Amino acid sequence: MKNINKITLKKNQDFDVDYYFNGIKDKNLTILSRAITLLESTKPEHQLLAEELVDLCLPLTGKSIRIGITGVPGVGKSTFIESFGTYLIENHQKKVAVLAIDPSSTKSGGSILGDKTRMNALSTNPLAFVRPSPSAGTLGGVAKATRESVVLCEAFGFDTIIIETVGVGQSETEVNSMVDFFLLLMLAGAGDELQGIKRGIMEMADTLVINKTDMENADRVKLAKQHYKNALHLFPANQNGWTPKVESCSALNHVGVAEIWNIVTDFTTLTNLNGWFEEKRKNQAKYWLTETINSSLLSLFYNRADIKTQLLQLENEVIENKTSPFKAARILLEKFKK
Amino acid sequence: MKNINKITLKKNQDFDVDYYFNGIKDKNLTILSRAITLLESTKPEHQLLAEELVDLCLPLTGKSIRIGITGVPGVGKSTFIESFGTYLIENHQKKVAVLAIDPSSTKSGGSILGDKTRMNALSTNPLAFVRPSPSAGTLGGVAKATRESVVLCEAFGFDTIIIETVGVGQSETEVNSMVDFFLLLMLAGAGDELQGIKRGIMEMADTLVINKTDMENADRVKLAKQHYKNALHLFPANQNGWTPKVESCSALNHVGVAEIWNIVTDFTTLTNLNGWFEEKRKNQAKYWLTETINSSLLSLFYNRADIKTQLLQLENEVIENKTSPFKAARILLEKFKK
Repeated sequence: MKNINKITLKKNQDFDVDYYFNGIKDKNLTILSRAITLLESTKPEHQLLAEELVDLCLPLTGKSIRIGITGVPGVGKSTFIESFGTYLIENHQKKVAVLAIDPSSTKSGGSILGDKTRMNALSTNPLAFVRPSPSAGTLGGVAKATRESVVLCEAFGFDTIIIETVGVGQSETEVNSMVDFFLLLMLAGAGDELQGIKRGIMEMADTLVINKTDMENADRVKLAKQHYKNALHLFPANQNGWTPKVESCSALNHVGVAEIWNIVTDFTTLTNLNGWFEEKRKNQAKYWLTETINSSLLSLFYNRADIKTQLLQLENEVIENKTSPFKAARILLEKFKK
Repeated sequence: MKNINKITLKKNQDFDVDYYFNGIKDKNLTILSRAITLLESTKPEHQLLAEELVDLCLPLTGKSIRIGITGVPGVGKSTFIESFGTYLIENHQKKVAVLAIDPSSTKSGGSILGDKTRMNALSTNPLAFVRPSPSAGTLGGVAKATRESVVLCEAFGFDTIIIETVGVGQSETEVNSMVDFFLLLMLAGAGDELQGIKRGIMEMADTLVINKTDMENADRVKLAKQHYKNALHLFPANQNGWTPKVESCSALNHVGVAEIWNIVTDFTTLTNLNGWFEEKRKNQAKYWLTETINSSLLSLFYNRADIKTQLLQLENEVIENKTSPFKAARILLEKFKK
């Protein structure tokens, strides 16, 4: 598998932007897949080519719903996406693309085969496209590649983009900044399983779904739903006028999946009417511009060798209360400006 | 009042760092007050002098408890601080300094007299020092001045520093990064009054206090306490081993104030034992170093006239889906590097 991947990367150098763009317009899945590999490449010449491709695809995007799905390992994300995606294809003639963000998996060098086989039915469905985590890169890089992949998938003709994250890292904020609707998968039980969910994630959820109802008795599920409803009620109202919902399902048995889709369409109807759907996308575009500028600026500073050395020394002085953080910062900034 | 302030500012230019430092060591409240005015000044020559003063004071700090207090307007913050501070002075021989952060008040040009009269008993107590919001500046500037004011107050000999914020803005994160213990004031009632509290603030609270029990019947207070206990239970555990508490009080009638102080001492005992008290302060010092570097870097970029012009143009292209945010960012960064 690794060998095949290497060959694809090598081949990328031989293709020009028209090859990729025409392939995407012609709905060639192999070329879409190669184009995403190009986005994930860290080589400068690949990045420039990728940038050109994304710009060509941009005018073809926007007519989709982007759904983020998160939850701790074991909550059944893959099974849910498999069931949900298949339902959308079979009952609503949707074209579904699934992208995954899991920066933790990059450490192992990627598990492309492993990830793909998790969603058997969906990844073999000709109306679906399943793309696992990039096999390398920092979170920022993975998030950038994922956001650009959304552009390519939409230009290709996918109208439902599902982005999966693991729900225990930093990636949720990034995903929340590239999706229209954010869904949090949970298990029944009172509170304890929340320990694995990072602070702040519940507040981002547009809907909370209790999965694996097949493994629980109905009373416990009902209790859990009430429990989470109370919890969500405590958060301040969303600006978009949407009240987060709590639903339950058994993805394994395809029970409750239709109801969750109804919630998504209720959400898009409401936010299209009040203008927040478009507003959010504009804000997200601005967010990514600012985020990219800011992170590039910071790495310009923190990667300079002379800054690195002095920062280490000043940081120690600051921790030991010998220099104030503000003075230390001023000294470093003056060095940077030179 | 404004005239007096101007005269003080003018005078500042005539004083050297020894004047301020000796005044602080001699426990001269007028000079402490002038020194804080110096910290708040945006003039470069004042800032350098202030930096020198803070560095001199730094070795004298650290033997204090820093408490952040927040809550929406109307929750009774001033009355609470008045009651709490007076209790600490009278019953525990504490020396209490109160600093306020309210960036919203800066728009009106400051309300020094108005703020001071809010805490009559405390501001006239010789063992207390009440310093209202700086009368000008951005949030970042106000936060910097407040953190430096803490240093001066501790060098002066104050052992209990209370920092007050309004609980509806961005300032809570800043305050949480300069205090040891964060207290959120609330009113009884089920959920609705939370609307005014910004997302994420409840998660930062080390203790939640329901104030104005004198205006509520006991059952409603009991219900509200249970309600908030359940809510806090839903948040993931703190790394420091502390479980946030829910308490109630009537600051007006000085009921429940002693119990809240007991909670604070329980907290410091625990976190001193497990090392988190010191650890948090070190992390805060590093946070301020990084924050100051980062915000200075960003203003270096965003304030450049040529960048400003092109950013505006590229931002529009990004919003209209004509350019990807990543390409736009690269173009701007290349301009900056030149």
